Amino acid sequence: MAEKTIIAIGQKPVANYALAVAHRHGEGVKVITIRARGARIGIAADAANMALNMGLPLRRGEARWGQEDGPKGRPVSWIEIDLAATAA
Amino acid sequence: MAEKTIIAIGQKPVANYALAVAHRHGEGVKVITIRARGARIGIAADAANMALNMGLPLRRGEARWGQEDGPKGRPVSWIEIDLAATAA
Repeated sequence: MAEKTIIAIGQKPVANYALAVAHRHGEGVKVITIRARGARIGIAADAANMALNMGLPLRRGEARWGQEDGPKGRPVSWIEIDLAATAA
Repeated sequence: MAEKTIIAIGQKPVANYALAVAHRHGEGVKVITIRARGARIGIAADAANMALNMGLPLRRGEARWGQEDGPKGRPVSWIEIDLAATAA
């Protein structure tokens, strides 16, 4: 089983990403990273908090942030938020 | 001089917050935290990246995230992003 995975925030409702976290967690992934860029960054935090509120054995991990080239060549901010599985 | 300060993201243009970072840095503050909630979270990352792009002796610091009660009693996501002064 993979130790880590990344869930990229797109255009779906926030609950979809929280459920994706639950699914990956159920598969045994140890660290689940939620990644978003630009205007979707707030959705990453919402999805992570929603996943925590589901009562799964997950804890807040670290967050990273930065900037990269966006689709139009302009710089776009990104964030990565980690959720870590706790001991069962 | 304060070791730390917090800049809260509100309704102003993102450049205002990047300039606030520069101002605090100029005052000698060592760690400048940009904080935002809800839909403004992406603005915090944008302001932090903009401040870095100004060429000031700052580096990316850690980021923290969580959830707290919002103005309507509903939970709202928050993020804090640190910018740390580098050695002159």
